[in-house]
Amino acid sequence: MAKFKKTKVEIEGKWQERETLVETDDLARWDDDVRLEKVGKPHTRVDGFERVSGTARYTHDVKLPGMLIGRILRSPVPHARIKKIDISAAAALPGVRFVLTNDTMGDLLKRGRSSLFETTVRFEGDEMAAVAAVDLQTAEEALALIKVDYEELPFVFDPAEALRSGAPAIRKGGNSAGEPSVYRRGNVDAGFLEADVVLDRTYSTSAALHNCLETHGAVARWEGDHLTVWHSTQNVFGVRSQMASALGLPLHKVRVIKEYIGGGFGSKNAAGKYALCAAILSRKTGRPVKIMLDRREENLAAGNRPQAVIHVRLGAKSDGRLTAIEVKSISGVGAYGEGSPPITGPARELYACENVLAEEQGALTNTGTYTAFRAPGYVEGTFALESAMDELAAELHLDPVEFRMKNYADRQQVRDLPYSTKNLSEAYTLGMKKIGWEKKRNLRSQAGTKMRGVGMASQLWSGGGTPPSYAIVRMNADGTFDVITGSQDLGTGTKTVFTQIAAEELGVAMERIHTVVGDTLTGPYSVLSAGSLTLPSVGPAVRMAAKDAKDQILEIAAEILNEPSEKLQITDGTIVSQSGSRISLDDVAQKVGNYMIIGKGARGPNPEEYNVNTFGAQFAEVEVDTETGEVRVLNVVAAHEFGRVINPLTLGSQIEGGVIQGLGFGLFEGRVMDRNTGKSVNPNLEDYKIPTALDVPDIDWNAVGPADPIATNIGAKGAGEPPIIPPAAAIANAVFDAIGLRIYDLPITPAKILDAVRMNGGRV
Amino acid sequence: MAKFKKTKVEIEGKWQERETLVETDDLARWDDDVRLEKVGKPHTRVDGFERVSGTARYTHDVKLPGMLIGRILRSPVPHARIKKIDISAAAALPGVRFVLTNDTMGDLLKRGRSSLFETTVRFEGDEMAAVAAVDLQTAEEALALIKVDYEELPFVFDPAEALRSGAPAIRKGGNSAGEPSVYRRGNVDAGFLEADVVLDRTYSTSAALHNCLETHGAVARWEGDHLTVWHSTQNVFGVRSQMASALGLPLHKVRVIKEYIGGGFGSKNAAGKYALCAAILSRKTGRPVKIMLDRREENLAAGNRPQAVIHVRLGAKSDGRLTAIEVKSISGVGAYGEGSPPITGPARELYACENVLAEEQGALTNTGTYTAFRAPGYVEGTFALESAMDELAAELHLDPVEFRMKNYADRQQVRDLPYSTKNLSEAYTLGMKKIGWEKKRNLRSQAGTKMRGVGMASQLWSGGGTPPSYAIVRMNADGTFDVITGSQDLGTGTKTVFTQIAAEELGVAMERIHTVVGDTLTGPYSVLSAGSLTLPSVGPAVRMAAKDAKDQILEIAAEILNEPSEKLQITDGTIVSQSGSRISLDDVAQKVGNYMIIGKGARGPNPEEYNVNTFGAQFAEVEVDTETGEVRVLNVVAAHEFGRVINPLTLGSQIEGGVIQGLGFGLFEGRVMDRNTGKSVNPNLEDYKIPTALDVPDIDWNAVGPADPIATNIGAKGAGEPPIIPPAAAIANAVFDAIGLRIYDLPITPAKILDAVRMNGGRV
Repeated sequence: MAKFKKTKVEIEGKWQERETLVETDDLARWDDDVRLEKVGKPHTRVDGFERVSGTARYTHDVKLPGMLIGRILRSPVPHARIKKIDISAAAALPGVRFVLTNDTMGDLLKRGRSSLFETTVRFEGDEMAAVAAVDLQTAEEALALIKVDYEELPFVFDPAEALRSGAPAIRKGGNSAGEPSVYRRGNVDAGFLEADVVLDRTYSTSAALHNCLETHGAVARWEGDHLTVWHSTQNVFGVRSQMASALGLPLHKVRVIKEYIGGGFGSKNAAGKYALCAAILSRKTGRPVKIMLDRREENLAAGNRPQAVIHVRLGAKSDGRLTAIEVKSISGVGAYGEGSPPITGPARELYACENVLAEEQGALTNTGTYTAFRAPGYVEGTFALESAMDELAAELHLDPVEFRMKNYADRQQVRDLPYSTKNLSEAYTLGMKKIGWEKKRNLRSQAGTKMRGVGMASQLWSGGGTPPSYAIVRMNADGTFDVITGSQDLGTGTKTVFTQIAAEELGVAMERIHTVVGDTLTGPYSVLSAGSLTLPSVGPAVRMAAKDAKDQILEIAAEILNEPSEKLQITDGTIVSQSGSRISLDDVAQKVGNYMIIGKGARGPNPEEYNVNTFGAQFAEVEVDTETGEVRVLNVVAAHEFGRVINPLTLGSQIEGGVIQGLGFGLFEGRVMDRNTGKSVNPNLEDYKIPTALDVPDIDWNAVGPADPIATNIGAKGAGEPPIIPPAAAIANAVFDAIGLRIYDLPITPAKILDAVRMNGGRV
Repeated sequence: MAKFKKTKVEIEGKWQERETLVETDDLARWDDDVRLEKVGKPHTRVDGFERVSGTARYTHDVKLPGMLIGRILRSPVPHARIKKIDISAAAALPGVRFVLTNDTMGDLLKRGRSSLFETTVRFEGDEMAAVAAVDLQTAEEALALIKVDYEELPFVFDPAEALRSGAPAIRKGGNSAGEPSVYRRGNVDAGFLEADVVLDRTYSTSAALHNCLETHGAVARWEGDHLTVWHSTQNVFGVRSQMASALGLPLHKVRVIKEYIGGGFGSKNAAGKYALCAAILSRKTGRPVKIMLDRREENLAAGNRPQAVIHVRLGAKSDGRLTAIEVKSISGVGAYGEGSPPITGPARELYACENVLAEEQGALTNTGTYTAFRAPGYVEGTFALESAMDELAAELHLDPVEFRMKNYADRQQVRDLPYSTKNLSEAYTLGMKKIGWEKKRNLRSQAGTKMRGVGMASQLWSGGGTPPSYAIVRMNADGTFDVITGSQDLGTGTKTVFTQIAAEELGVAMERIHTVVGDTLTGPYSVLSAGSLTLPSVGPAVRMAAKDAKDQILEIAAEILNEPSEKLQITDGTIVSQSGSRISLDDVAQKVGNYMIIGKGARGPNPEEYNVNTFGAQFAEVEVDTETGEVRVLNVVAAHEFGRVINPLTLGSQIEGGVIQGLGFGLFEGRVMDRNTGKSVNPNLEDYKIPTALDVPDIDWNAVGPADPIATNIGAKGAGEPPIIPPAAAIANAVFDAIGLRIYDLPITPAKILDAVRMNGGRV
């Protein structure tokens, strides 16, 4: 039962006391002594067949009777003032049903932006108009017939340049994307004065694209004044409220459905402008409208990890104790970004240090707008901080791990609270052992032109989840169960782990359970699937709902068996009493018939006296070809702490995916802009390089530490972001170990290696 | 909370003690002193726009990507042994994806019938094979290419003939569709001996077709081993369990969806063989498959009200007291029917009589199988009983209403229990007054060739509803609500009345509420929408769920206002305290945010110490043209008791629809079989006559009596069947009043009127 009361919540990074609802969670943690039967076992995906057989339905697969295809006209230039849009030829094209501009839109857009399209376009790919036509080809022909008169304006795409005075102004009042975010602890000036060694370095990272296999898109259909949107999204409830708000609809008139999704990685957390265009075009034409971006649009306009420049200054005593950490970042958040990703997060939290200054500044640029990308900020910030730590360890003549252990944080540094659990030191020990740290370090002198080295980096991320989230567990008349939540499965195995949790709590086989997600009408509210939130936020609600259903079943069985319900439990689908009497769940279900057991569960509050985090370390072994500049990653040992492992198979997939995506960020990926035109030269998958199967190293992943006894009733923490955080730094540090040269700018391309070698006089 | 305990339930017409679940319903009845704001008011349909604008989606409208069209091969003869089916030419036709016969089906059919298709076909329209093809035309061409060798067998379609020895045997062991159902009370032989007057008559009624505007049909789609069926049905949960059972699937792998439906009237209570064919063809082809019957198939094979012969014997004292009632019926339940509709129900229950013998016998015939049709049995049985009562009143020189009042049943006759309410006498009084009974009776002598008369008939039906049914009420983050049940709206206004009930209980405007039905996944279990069950079964669960949600909201408001929740109520969307302090629901919703209030409601048990029924009487004024034989109904006054009226608009529609459908049954409708071929000569809407707008009389409908204080927490009873029960008898009695001649066989066609006049020597 929800109660309204004062509690501490994090609002924009600050913990404040606020009145909020709190859902009771009086459920005991699963005792580690309890033999868990379903949880902790490697189960294949419950929807594996659908995924591999082509029957899984993605937003891209949605086809509705009478459906029109919509396309969006996008700016071909990075910055221009639109003087006139002439849609007459497009509107006259047979098969075109509507051409949407600010002029033709009417008053459908209610809140938020004053107009759907900007009158000044601010990046290549910025939306200018949209059409709906009977098919894709007609829609594309229509786009080509729209005449736009525009006056080109000077542009800027480098974030540091954008902030300089005299840079082309993207918004009135300059290119700062909001006030810098500043965090201070202690006194860094004093800390640097106290230091024996100070390291001062600047790192830079490239704008990286999410490259979802399924591009962004949506289908909109109206029935009366009720709107249904199929949206490739990580956040069905968020999209619902955003669509409702933009169109001035109450929430109960908007339904958002996402069945299967081909990747999101943070880029699909919100309703896209394409979805608004689809909804408005559908309203105008009286037909369903589908808009899916093509790969070029996807890469230009669907979001990115922003290009960043990160300045790190570390001070340490000669014994290795950090006296000051200062990190200042500038990131290019694109034309319409706000604020900055939390690049300084690792600097604030990862190490015990009394004096910290962390400053983040976002810069508007004439590029696509930044969106969250798996561990936003932390990937960039960890590359910088953990590269600097490696370099400082070398200056201090300390082993990198030893240096980190000297600054090990036993308490959460910002809130000054104990951690619910922290087993990062175990991760270090295990990683060192498994990679062969002692044996493989510092072999530089023994190598030929292909030089090998090992490096490591640490990771910290939240991962404890958050309320509110809800689940319903229903027993059908044959003793099967539906587990229903308003969560969504990003392909990470959400349905599978929810099924395991419910099966464990109910004491039944997984086959008895059907888990349903991805529909705001069918499922109760659940948080978005981002930020490693899903499992620790919704999983506990699933367990609560299963417990509630189980309690009702046991009460009924108690009457049948004439035993007190407290003495009953369900094991392998049979209700068993301590006295030995028993009845199968099938028999109970048959007696219950169409009377439906409906269990309800809610996510309880987060602990107020502890900080819940995930930790980990990755160790990489690389081989650097000093003649070609090529870096190959041979092995990665990933050791992460996620509390209880619900499913080793899906966890392994998460870690492997993260390592590979991090490797791509470290070695290959980056949006490349043309200085003369301000356009992207690689908005595609030919020229934008992501790792292929041949680039994937042997990945030895490991979960360390026990179930978290405090975090939630399932003891598990989120594993989405952590694995992508350390790879780039671990690889950069391994490259340094291999050739003694450090690359400060990602990705570590062959050209940069060769440049570094050349700058070093050819010496490695 | 559900508890398992012993309670009395009706099993096959008998009340037995049985262990069953009982849901608590501690909700107070709405006091009649309470000013109800939403309930009782004439609200137009909440989905009126969708219905009239074409955006409402019927099963017929479902189109899925890659969907195939299925068609069924049906027997062209009424009875034949199939020797061979050759599908080779059909299977070879380009565009044909699968031809389904018992041979090609494999082992997909798990339970129930041993095979999907019969090897002996038993009526014109019986299923023999099915095809799935890329479009309708190809599927129909394929049907024409299937060669069936069959040996024709003798047939019988008249129910009485079918039971005679020597009749063609439709099933081994003869044509009895089960043992006769016999009910005895007292001693009829003694009753007839005691009688001063005995009336002995035989009535007959025709097989009537439901004529749903939307024909029967389904669409099936598999995703892995999960099956989704869109089925034009009155019973999504029933279809789910039937499909699951037939295909050997657990319930959680089957989802049934019915959005809008174009009529059911009892014929869509179950999964059709077309749905099984669609599911199996879909499994075989890997594509969604849609099968919708055409009008001819619909009229041959989608069910009917069976042809019946009803023998009535009534005994009465000269003062009008009934001493014995004996009713024996034979109905032709078609080739695969079981049992008989409850034709003798009115005889058992309508009048106080100590001696009753009621016998029902079903006869197999070579015709389409009978299914429930709005007030099954009661329409036929009431025509017979109320015609006989009218005739006996004349013999006793009593006014027909006076005669009925002399035999008024104050207690339920079969269970010997008091009624929760019975206000039939009020209906009589009101009907007499409004039709002008005293003035218009017995005007025969004053008329010319167009003679007018008035007649009346009574009606009794259950109507109290039944558990189990469930509802969920959720509050969204903007203070709007979703009311979700697994019920279905047959077009009767279910969504509208649920919305009214929830709005009333929550104290908010109806616009704040979105009511959702018709999906086994989205909604919790609800009973089928048939037998006048929906409102009194699901409505109370909706009220309970709204109350549960409201209680949670008030608890939260209590903490905000710092008042005890017992002192709070919601009025017009504002939470008001007795102390005068208040907060709007919008403000509470904003504070609650994404925390979701989820209310759950269940239908409580029926009262054990009372019988809950609906009662009514209809009075008809007719004009009989003695030269053409045409009967025109000029006026109908319908006075019915349904307890509390939730929505006068939708109730009026129900009554008008019932009167019109009953009028059609009385005057026009009937399946006509060809004696030589055993085929129907009118399986269409040209030759099968239903009332048109020009045949519709002025209908003055009235609800009598107060809210039922016992039935359920909403005090309302079901209005689906009652209005169709009395019209045929009232019209037949009015015809008798007009011309002094009685027609014993429905429909009362001009030919029968002219025959009767002729038989009477031209005298009227």
